[in-house]
Amino acid sequence: MNNYKVSSNKIINKNNSILYDAFNPNNISFLFEKIQQKLYKLLQDKTKKGIHCITPHELLNIALHLTDHKSGESIIERLNQIVDLHINTAIKVNSTGYMARQFSSVIPVSAIYDVVNSLCPQPASFYECGPLPNVADKIIAEKFAKFLGWENSNYGMISTSGASLANLTAVITARNNKYPNIWKKGNADQKNLVPTIAIGTDAHFSVSRIAGIIGLGQDNIILLPLNAQRQICIKQAKQILNKAHKNGKDIFCIIAAAGSTSIGAIDPLKELSELAIKYKAWFHVDAAHSGSFLVSDQLRNRVAGLTYADSFCLDAHKTLFVPAACTLLFYKNGDKTKHTFPIQASYVTEEFEDEITKFESGTKNFECTKRPSILNLWVVWSLYGQQFFATKLNLLVKTTFQAYKYLQTLDNFETLHKPESNILCFRYLPNEKKLSKEKLNYLQLKIRDKIRDEGRYFISKVDLDHITALRIVIMNHEISMDDIADLTKHIETAANSILKTF
Amino acid sequence: MNNYKVSSNKIINKNNSILYDAFNPNNISFLFEKIQQKLYKLLQDKTKKGIHCITPHELLNIALHLTDHKSGESIIERLNQIVDLHINTAIKVNSTGYMARQFSSVIPVSAIYDVVNSLCPQPASFYECGPLPNVADKIIAEKFAKFLGWENSNYGMISTSGASLANLTAVITARNNKYPNIWKKGNADQKNLVPTIAIGTDAHFSVSRIAGIIGLGQDNIILLPLNAQRQICIKQAKQILNKAHKNGKDIFCIIAAAGSTSIGAIDPLKELSELAIKYKAWFHVDAAHSGSFLVSDQLRNRVAGLTYADSFCLDAHKTLFVPAACTLLFYKNGDKTKHTFPIQASYVTEEFEDEITKFESGTKNFECTKRPSILNLWVVWSLYGQQFFATKLNLLVKTTFQAYKYLQTLDNFETLHKPESNILCFRYLPNEKKLSKEKLNYLQLKIRDKIRDEGRYFISKVDLDHITALRIVIMNHEISMDDIADLTKHIETAANSILKTF
Repeated sequence: MNNYKVSSNKIINKNNSILYDAFNPNNISFLFEKIQQKLYKLLQDKTKKGIHCITPHELLNIALHLTDHKSGESIIERLNQIVDLHINTAIKVNSTGYMARQFSSVIPVSAIYDVVNSLCPQPASFYECGPLPNVADKIIAEKFAKFLGWENSNYGMISTSGASLANLTAVITARNNKYPNIWKKGNADQKNLVPTIAIGTDAHFSVSRIAGIIGLGQDNIILLPLNAQRQICIKQAKQILNKAHKNGKDIFCIIAAAGSTSIGAIDPLKELSELAIKYKAWFHVDAAHSGSFLVSDQLRNRVAGLTYADSFCLDAHKTLFVPAACTLLFYKNGDKTKHTFPIQASYVTEEFEDEITKFESGTKNFECTKRPSILNLWVVWSLYGQQFFATKLNLLVKTTFQAYKYLQTLDNFETLHKPESNILCFRYLPNEKKLSKEKLNYLQLKIRDKIRDEGRYFISKVDLDHITALRIVIMNHEISMDDIADLTKHIETAANSILKTF
Repeated sequence: MNNYKVSSNKIINKNNSILYDAFNPNNISFLFEKIQQKLYKLLQDKTKKGIHCITPHELLNIALHLTDHKSGESIIERLNQIVDLHINTAIKVNSTGYMARQFSSVIPVSAIYDVVNSLCPQPASFYECGPLPNVADKIIAEKFAKFLGWENSNYGMISTSGASLANLTAVITARNNKYPNIWKKGNADQKNLVPTIAIGTDAHFSVSRIAGIIGLGQDNIILLPLNAQRQICIKQAKQILNKAHKNGKDIFCIIAAAGSTSIGAIDPLKELSELAIKYKAWFHVDAAHSGSFLVSDQLRNRVAGLTYADSFCLDAHKTLFVPAACTLLFYKNGDKTKHTFPIQASYVTEEFEDEITKFESGTKNFECTKRPSILNLWVVWSLYGQQFFATKLNLLVKTTFQAYKYLQTLDNFETLHKPESNILCFRYLPNEKKLSKEKLNYLQLKIRDKIRDEGRYFISKVDLDHITALRIVIMNHEISMDDIADLTKHIETAANSILKTF
């Protein structure tokens, strides 16, 4: 094949021929090859790249030019330009320069598998439409059940599209189980009760939104303070929950994190689960970031407390390195999911046999047309095995810890925590100048921006109780200590140049 | 390249070498080629295929064997087996035999583009991480604004992951705008008001779930009856809303459909929008299925009433033929989205310039890590133009209408509605036997199952006010009247064989 074939059949009109050409298998293979070549070049490129900054209006003009093509370029030329533009403006997760956020350096075969998922759909909410993802859910769930010691119990797992949705789904399950008539009657009917959710002050914004979404009101969230490691402080949590309880708040759900988005902190899960039992509350853990530690013999112990959770979620698209969005939501007692969404649609939930019903997730997950993202995870597991994920995770956590130790040996760097995962926050402290707290914060921001604008590395910033810090997230296993050392030199140079303007 | 290279470097241990091999660009290209060959064969195959039935336990055994490979097969052999299993068990959207549901026969280039989205992520909620999808949102929004006559107004659009999420997001926006303190104080605080949503009795289950999810209670949904065309009946709606209003219900949102999942009916949008104005309610339209008619000069008029909606969503993964999930949620007044999710996370929404803020969707959509599915749509639009979508849509709607006319010429078939889109419901009525209502319903079910088990066609069934009907959804533009005629013959044969057992 050496070209995209434009049909010359005069019987069908021009519009129809574009349509039939687009579905012509030879043309498709040709487009496939073109895209493959672009991606091969991308993956071969080992230069350090942070991010390519472009203003919205600049990018809009380029993209508009490609949308409303009037220059007579061929389909292939336009596709080439689009893919180039995509690659140039994307975050550089395939480079060792990108250390900004929890975006995965995706396992290539799981990314390629997306074209199977898309061209040959298996919509995953109902067994009839997506048998393989429903079966894959069960296989993956069983793997994790063993890590949790749940294998002989009545656990449950649904895969869903993102931790925001998983956290919401878990809280709805908790709420509907605690208040059996709330689904029909609404919150206003809970006359003397004030349903309340307790979360850590560092909870992800998708967690802190939930009370607003489900109509409990953000004011009915209890914020649990953190200890020095930015984990929920059990001592203070006990006092606060006790006081709230006495004030008539009905704490029906306690939500912990493992680990937190800001620094990767893992809350004291066992102790919090005991507090939940005390208040007859549901214990949910947002383990979007570190729940995947379960797959690693080295790291499992850090999240061992997940076994005490009534539910927890983990983002396979973060730390199991598959394309977004693939979130697993686990339930200690799978029967509780009967009350998650107690409505069924006649055209999808017919008189299924019992066997199939057990394999259906449609009445337990939020989505109707659900992408079978579980298959992106299952295919990697099947090809490379559990140890593959563990190896990559172990490397990331090890490099992060080494970076932490290394920064401690440097004069002008201060680490803000001992990393519990692959996230590290630190500051640059110039020793030759005494700076106010505000100026010191501003310096970190300016360093972040300068490093970003250089385009070699991209790191993020974070605000920890009004202290601005630099933040790296090691997602690419090819990042080495040489890269960390090089990054610190660039930070030092950037800082010195910024300090001259202070 | 003629093999997947297994690294023999003895310095790195076996686990590490599997990891590095998986990220080796040559190996990736090799896997890519293997998958391309499989998909080429799939798309070339023009045989009629309905669905391949397999029980969960049978499939589980096959899948488990692939997961826990102990037979020493190579990575490529296992990948081949996995892709084969995927293709065999998937719904046959690429065949002209599949007419069961609203799953798209996906435009190939948009499916292939998914590998770009996955290997080179542009997480779409925040401009910094995903500049191109945020810009593509604006371009696509502007196209639709012109179809709606909104181009000179302050409209807004967010892309999100599925209509279930879009419908929920729209209702939250409606609620938060109507009750300014509900986000903080919760529903229980709306002392004398009973916030109420009115929906059609044929509303999709994602719509009827919303009151339960957001804590209003399913009992505070008003169901609006349908007319003979299964559209919301305006006359009855007026009476019911009036009565509810007098009984102290505060109708803050009216939700219509365009078209309904069961038969593709389009509610009287203009008249419902006028009712909404009367009650100071928000008017949302779940146009997941037929909102895309806006792109077609022939079909636009059918959904012209969308211009009166405060918000509406459409599923590009249904009738714009891109991979799931790609839903567009439009707002007549974009400013209203300021109140959708009034919480921000410090680590994502920093001190952005005004220009970038305008291009950010993170505080307006539910997701945090959002797949840039808008690019799958934008790439097709850029390569083939608007007319491409219109051509495919026009063909589908035309074939459906021809099928309707054709069935009317047949003795033993009864159509249940004049199709407003690409969905047609009908029944087989044996003229030689008088059957009870129950037996007649049972016959349709049995026909559906028998046709399914033959494996040549796959059609669905639907329950319309206790009348069971057969249902076809024409999503593949290659389905011709010959296929429809052939299908009716198979139905006739199936029915005759089933009737012998009655």
